[in-house]
Amino acid sequence: MEKVGCETPFDRFDQQKPHCNFGMAGICCRNCNNGPCRITRKSPRGVCGANADLIVARNLLRWVAAGVAAHGARGREIMLALKASAEGSLRLPIAGEEKLRKSAVQLGIDIEGKTTDAVALKVAAALLEDLSRAVPEKHKTLSAFATPERIEVWKDLDILPVGAYHEVFEALHRTTTGTDGDWKNVMQQFLRCGLAFAWTSALGSSIAMDSLFGLPERSTVRVNVGALKEGYVNIAIHGHSPLLVSEIIKQGRSEEFVCLAKENGAEGIQFYGICCSGLSAMYRYGGVIPLSNAIGAELILGTGALDLWVADVQDVFPTIIDVAKCFKTTVVTTSDSAKLPGAEHYGYDHIHSNLKETENLAKKIIRRAIESFAARRDVPVFIPDYEVNAEIGFSLEYAVSRFGSIDVIADALKEGKVAGVVNLVGCSNTRVVYEKAVADVATKLIENNILVLTNGCASFPLMKLGFCNQEALDRTGRELRGFLEPDLPPVWHMGECIDNARASALFRALSDASGKDIKDMPFALASPEWSNEKGLGAALGFRLLGVNSYHCVHPPVQGSENVMKYLYEDTGETLGSVMVVELDPSKLADRIVSDIQEKRKALGWK
Amino acid sequence: MEKVGCETPFDRFDQQKPHCNFGMAGICCRNCNNGPCRITRKSPRGVCGANADLIVARNLLRWVAAGVAAHGARGREIMLALKASAEGSLRLPIAGEEKLRKSAVQLGIDIEGKTTDAVALKVAAALLEDLSRAVPEKHKTLSAFATPERIEVWKDLDILPVGAYHEVFEALHRTTTGTDGDWKNVMQQFLRCGLAFAWTSALGSSIAMDSLFGLPERSTVRVNVGALKEGYVNIAIHGHSPLLVSEIIKQGRSEEFVCLAKENGAEGIQFYGICCSGLSAMYRYGGVIPLSNAIGAELILGTGALDLWVADVQDVFPTIIDVAKCFKTTVVTTSDSAKLPGAEHYGYDHIHSNLKETENLAKKIIRRAIESFAARRDVPVFIPDYEVNAEIGFSLEYAVSRFGSIDVIADALKEGKVAGVVNLVGCSNTRVVYEKAVADVATKLIENNILVLTNGCASFPLMKLGFCNQEALDRTGRELRGFLEPDLPPVWHMGECIDNARASALFRALSDASGKDIKDMPFALASPEWSNEKGLGAALGFRLLGVNSYHCVHPPVQGSENVMKYLYEDTGETLGSVMVVELDPSKLADRIVSDIQEKRKALGWK
Repeated sequence: MEKVGCETPFDRFDQQKPHCNFGMAGICCRNCNNGPCRITRKSPRGVCGANADLIVARNLLRWVAAGVAAHGARGREIMLALKASAEGSLRLPIAGEEKLRKSAVQLGIDIEGKTTDAVALKVAAALLEDLSRAVPEKHKTLSAFATPERIEVWKDLDILPVGAYHEVFEALHRTTTGTDGDWKNVMQQFLRCGLAFAWTSALGSSIAMDSLFGLPERSTVRVNVGALKEGYVNIAIHGHSPLLVSEIIKQGRSEEFVCLAKENGAEGIQFYGICCSGLSAMYRYGGVIPLSNAIGAELILGTGALDLWVADVQDVFPTIIDVAKCFKTTVVTTSDSAKLPGAEHYGYDHIHSNLKETENLAKKIIRRAIESFAARRDVPVFIPDYEVNAEIGFSLEYAVSRFGSIDVIADALKEGKVAGVVNLVGCSNTRVVYEKAVADVATKLIENNILVLTNGCASFPLMKLGFCNQEALDRTGRELRGFLEPDLPPVWHMGECIDNARASALFRALSDASGKDIKDMPFALASPEWSNEKGLGAALGFRLLGVNSYHCVHPPVQGSENVMKYLYEDTGETLGSVMVVELDPSKLADRIVSDIQEKRKALGWK
Repeated sequence: MEKVGCETPFDRFDQQKPHCNFGMAGICCRNCNNGPCRITRKSPRGVCGANADLIVARNLLRWVAAGVAAHGARGREIMLALKASAEGSLRLPIAGEEKLRKSAVQLGIDIEGKTTDAVALKVAAALLEDLSRAVPEKHKTLSAFATPERIEVWKDLDILPVGAYHEVFEALHRTTTGTDGDWKNVMQQFLRCGLAFAWTSALGSSIAMDSLFGLPERSTVRVNVGALKEGYVNIAIHGHSPLLVSEIIKQGRSEEFVCLAKENGAEGIQFYGICCSGLSAMYRYGGVIPLSNAIGAELILGTGALDLWVADVQDVFPTIIDVAKCFKTTVVTTSDSAKLPGAEHYGYDHIHSNLKETENLAKKIIRRAIESFAARRDVPVFIPDYEVNAEIGFSLEYAVSRFGSIDVIADALKEGKVAGVVNLVGCSNTRVVYEKAVADVATKLIENNILVLTNGCASFPLMKLGFCNQEALDRTGRELRGFLEPDLPPVWHMGECIDNARASALFRALSDASGKDIKDMPFALASPEWSNEKGLGAALGFRLLGVNSYHCVHPPVQGSENVMKYLYEDTGETLGSVMVVELDPSKLADRIVSDIQEKRKALGWK
């Protein structure tokens, strides 16, 4: 990259040094035009009188609110699509009928004798209501899917959410000048947002996606840049919005376009996955090769092998355009929420009025890919020789079918064949060595017989370094290896970041089968390198279940002893879980292992 | 204050100096945990690749989104209360039947033969739907109340909002890492949020409030600290949420509590207004003495004259507690959205499940006021000798009844008796000399025959300095004076900050009567000292109507030439209006006067 004069996020991180200490510690406030205010010994309060505790808490609340909005916005697109499909205004078949009907029953919807479309309309309406409710009523998804024990805990803490839109709105309201003056009350809203995140933005979205697109398929994929195929029309799928992607892949595999590609001198059309819409395409449609998360996207473009880059929302760094230009890669954006100067735009409008244009939009994009292929035959390609296989498409449903019953896994957990289960996820962060923390933590966990689940950004290094391959059983503790042999890897790839819902479903099923509360089980969430606002929500969602979260980077709370103590200690009393931060990945893994041993001891499990 | 050792916002502002230049210029990004990032010549992009334009635009969008949420959250409370009143779960009569029915007809609701409660249910449902819509459909309030000319403009710009909740959610989504990479697209969402602000958070809220509580009453009030009454149970109403306030005042004036106050040695119970719930109580119930906006609240407490301070939401600085303690003033908070450590809390819960407790909550608060009076007879009181009368309770409805027809005012405008109309509003800002900019601008406007409307924070200095008094006609240009004599002041007080809706209603009525578009009329919005996020939304709301906004403080955009040009110049082409910033209040007023003269010239009006 240096040779071709293209910068990367790592270069930009270095240029940003030294970082502002006020921002790092969370004690800079820019919530009004009296400031900005910064907390120091000399100025212990902002103009409005807010102190460090309040400023740190407010900033954190705005972060988690943005996380609810990020996951929720893409979930909403699929809820609308599910509705439109059922109404016939979107020509997309409902591929996940079984999941749809099962979810409907859980939501208390009568499905007896109802058509798939009728059920889909009811489910979409329930999910959209949970998203947008303004008049306080029961949150349907939460009430249907959370355990009675947790609902009691949340009720006692008075943190049951009205709806996702509402709690975000209220979070912003509360953090405006002179509104909430009590950092503890601000943190209560933080917890409400966490529940809105978990039960609408994550689970609601996941139900809509699985209903519309179907469940993952267990399969094997080639991974990493070495799998890039010269001579093909190479299309990268980048972002987090699976709707148009599903049609793009369908069209890209149609005879019409495969022929057109061949007429233009290509051997065929090949798709690659960047971030989460890449991952969900990979596990749903097969043959999509996962390459990288957001931070590595510019490096992938730097191979020169991509003809077209389809970017939708989230974790699409605007600088991909600069690198794409160097290599004549055509960049297409597809969401009204996320445009890029220099990209071509073929997408849904702000009000999704052109949903019925889905097929045409996809065709236009494939056609542009083939044109781009033809126009850039002179671009030099450099494909490093790294590739490996990964097993993907894991889910509760698959696990049950593989083992015959959830009880088999629950028994293995009780007997210590599986010492614990850790959901190892999260985006990357330029503050730490790229992807090393995730790999280091995984290494130690599987050595210690802990089964690892993964999804999203963190799953890229785990796939690329062979953790999702049965060969990693060689690096796995004896007990766990015995349980997984011969066909299962020690790291189960569950999909994209909203598929955290699959991990929590497995946690729930295992604790139910064990007759225990989730909070008492040997489970953990680790996102060692997280950096995004939605990553804060994901970890919080698991803590709200009573599952500790583990990280190698601090959130911006070090300016407030009180907020730090709240996150790192006090929620142990109320939620049964805390946030654990340890900068050294190896020590973090040790802490996870020892905490899991503690849980086992408390359960009386060896 | 210095003598008693209490600090004020002015002290805290001085302690905050020097301010962070990155924050001031809007080029500090804290939207993820890779940063914070700051734009410099050495580091022209954040880690994610966002440049100055994008960072400035994103920060600004988050501000206006918070503004939508702030106004919208308190509007929602009243929409819920209107619904609850109609359903009978809140014992509060619907006092604004005429306004309710008129609004219903405008919203296309059939009121023929319907009871007030039935109409109220329909109106509340329409307003709540505009607030919370997730599935794109027409925004009812906007469609019913905006002019066809404006709706066309907004449609062409593709900025019609789905709903207030949605646009806020989308604003946060768009500004998360790697989502919207195009600053122009971010600014388009900024405009959408502005429309959501204007038509739901302001107008929707205003319809709900006027329907539930009735229209303002034109009356005269005593103003300023000199009006504080020793010997009375003195209760300050501080914030922006009129619901519980309406009951508190009713109870405070009941025989039961007036007697109890007298039994405890008081001469009676007296209410005072701080900020907007104080103002709306003042114009609706009479006899509530307005004292100060947020920034002066600590100074008011410093008189030692207040027995109880009722704080609800927004512009309640947490430091009032410290001053209150010095003077043994009891502070009560009433909203779940806004608690204060050290205050007693009697209020509605997060889901408003205790709306039916309204009467009991109000009684409890009055009882605490009387107890507090009895317990603090030893506190020294210092009441500076400043007081003045102000005329209040202006509205379109009043203006029409006073002049017999809107045409009379429209003709006066055309003939130049009224050179123009300026809505002079906005919060205060410690960056400028407190309240001086507002007074300086008003002085010059009325000298130049420009009628001034006011509300909210900016109305406090205008009331206190006699601008809302007929005596100010002495300082008013000859033409305007002639038109207003003998009974009308040159500054019309229209209420609290959501009552910007009254100013825009007058603008609309005058332009309709003149047969012109609002954008061509000699109107302006000035908020010289604004500091709050909602203040950004208010000014934007008027610019979206085609009315320029004028300010003495820059928003944090100086780090981006493009965003500055967009706000200060480019929207002239698209919206017919721009943001004008001029640090010197006198020059700002000159600019308003000359721009209004330009408008008159273009209209062919002398």
